[in-house]
Amino acid sequence: MAVKQVVVGIDIGGTNTVFGFVERQGNILAEDCLKTFHYDEIEVYVAALYEKIMVTRQKIKDSIEIIGFGIGAPMGNINKGTIEYPSGLPWKGILPLADIFKRHTNLPVMVTNDANAAAVGEMIYGGAKKMKNFVVITLGTGLGSGFVVDGKLVYGHDGFAGEIGHTAIRPGPSNRDCGCGRKGCLETYVSATGLKRSLLKVMADSIQPSELRKYSFEELDAKIIHDAALRGDPIALRAFQHTGRMLGFKLADVVAHTNPEAIFLFGGLALAKDLIFEPAKEYMEENLLSIYKGKVKLLPSELTTQNAAVLGASSLIWSVKEAES
Amino acid sequence: MAVKQVVVGIDIGGTNTVFGFVERQGNILAEDCLKTFHYDEIEVYVAALYEKIMVTRQKIKDSIEIIGFGIGAPMGNINKGTIEYPSGLPWKGILPLADIFKRHTNLPVMVTNDANAAAVGEMIYGGAKKMKNFVVITLGTGLGSGFVVDGKLVYGHDGFAGEIGHTAIRPGPSNRDCGCGRKGCLETYVSATGLKRSLLKVMADSIQPSELRKYSFEELDAKIIHDAALRGDPIALRAFQHTGRMLGFKLADVVAHTNPEAIFLFGGLALAKDLIFEPAKEYMEENLLSIYKGKVKLLPSELTTQNAAVLGASSLIWSVKEAES
Repeated sequence: MAVKQVVVGIDIGGTNTVFGFVERQGNILAEDCLKTFHYDEIEVYVAALYEKIMVTRQKIKDSIEIIGFGIGAPMGNINKGTIEYPSGLPWKGILPLADIFKRHTNLPVMVTNDANAAAVGEMIYGGAKKMKNFVVITLGTGLGSGFVVDGKLVYGHDGFAGEIGHTAIRPGPSNRDCGCGRKGCLETYVSATGLKRSLLKVMADSIQPSELRKYSFEELDAKIIHDAALRGDPIALRAFQHTGRMLGFKLADVVAHTNPEAIFLFGGLALAKDLIFEPAKEYMEENLLSIYKGKVKLLPSELTTQNAAVLGASSLIWSVKEAES
Repeated sequence: MAVKQVVVGIDIGGTNTVFGFVERQGNILAEDCLKTFHYDEIEVYVAALYEKIMVTRQKIKDSIEIIGFGIGAPMGNINKGTIEYPSGLPWKGILPLADIFKRHTNLPVMVTNDANAAAVGEMIYGGAKKMKNFVVITLGTGLGSGFVVDGKLVYGHDGFAGEIGHTAIRPGPSNRDCGCGRKGCLETYVSATGLKRSLLKVMADSIQPSELRKYSFEELDAKIIHDAALRGDPIALRAFQHTGRMLGFKLADVVAHTNPEAIFLFGGLALAKDLIFEPAKEYMEENLLSIYKGKVKLLPSELTTQNAAVLGASSLIWSVKEAES
């Protein structure tokens, strides 16, 4: 029986770390997870993670060869293999994740942030297989982005390219506070949290009735607002429209930077489909310079399985292997 | 005597077309110019330009070999060798400039916009010789930009990357009209014209005396405002400060897209030195996400000769030659 080459894709989140054994075509042979927040020390966490990966490996019936480990993590830095000042993880400061991981293996270990991983995943397994210039926007609790130029992910000089969640909607101090300590960042408008904030703003400004008036801010989530919008709730619909417009406004800026063929939306909010795509597309087109109008596709990510983040993380290793061969 | 390899660099402006014979080190062996606006038909213009280039060639005493023609032009498109709907040139529509030029020569002909040419020029001859990730902003009548990622100029899917002069300062309709038909574009604030507009705004809002109150909008230019600022004119100083701040605000966005090592300012307004660099740097830093703070250099272009645009245009050919070798 032929040996199957696989990459271990690892997605580190604040609650769970999910990993899987991924073949080149995106088939996942086995997967499991670990509670990230159970580990106060990153060295202990990595040892436990590596052990669990090896235990899971034993469950695979096929003969496999692991060719590397691809890791997606908040504030992951590809140049240095570090996680730098992540918010939402149990560890602080600059964490040499790849180095710690390499105490357990001699195979390649690559680290990047989840949005960059999603962008490479879209190129390796998803809707961007034939594209050389595109952008992936990840819409979760926050907003991340990964840029591909000329077939390669843009890392930038310090390994931190693609943080458009922290570009500003407008200048000046009278804007929404962002978790990063600044004001008016795109992700304060366009993210699951941004949607909730816009909903409260619309609810404050409007006198329209809404089933959502009975929820507290803490009780609300994107799904509740989405479901209400599908039932025609006017406040929920306006919150989605505002969210989509703010996204479209900044996507026009993105186009003026790197002129992509397509922009893919990935993650929770993207599942709201027309509720987010229609206003985003309309406002993007309205704000595009004429040379770009009608040319840039706004598409849903084709990495739609539950394991999209694991696929993205594993794609880091495949993309390097293919560049070398 | 050794044959000297040269590239003919051509900078097409609305008034003048300037060209020069450029050696690899940036030495210009001969140069001349042609009145662009004298030619109603682009075919006749190109024939006259080519003839004038050949006449100028005869004046060079050294033995030379021309290896190609690099052309910088408004709305120049590298992928197609076209100029597309240029404003300020005597010709309209999509103009197949490289094809027309190739009726006269079998050598490589490359066309791009002046800001992209400036970016490659900075890499080949200027301050970015050892850099892989940087941005050049050209400040003239308008604002152009060229992005270099991983040692290569970013052209984008349609050849139009780097139009940040047409990203928007803020959303909404209550903004300055831009020549592109949209509102609130960066270049309506940050350019020679933008400086004049901000001056008028400050003059309208303030009751401070100013020597500039005697000038009409048409009489004003960046040099008059610059000279007044150097003499301490308060209105001129505030106009520069506003211009620098709007630039800095959007440069923070630029950093969040491609994370460059440095941003170079090129062209007329950049010559105002501290008057533009200080507020731009301060406001950029203030608006940067913490991971970028203190890391991105804001520098004057080192292409400071009168022939900077010719150098930039010629560098297109050198950069391709070196990528091939």
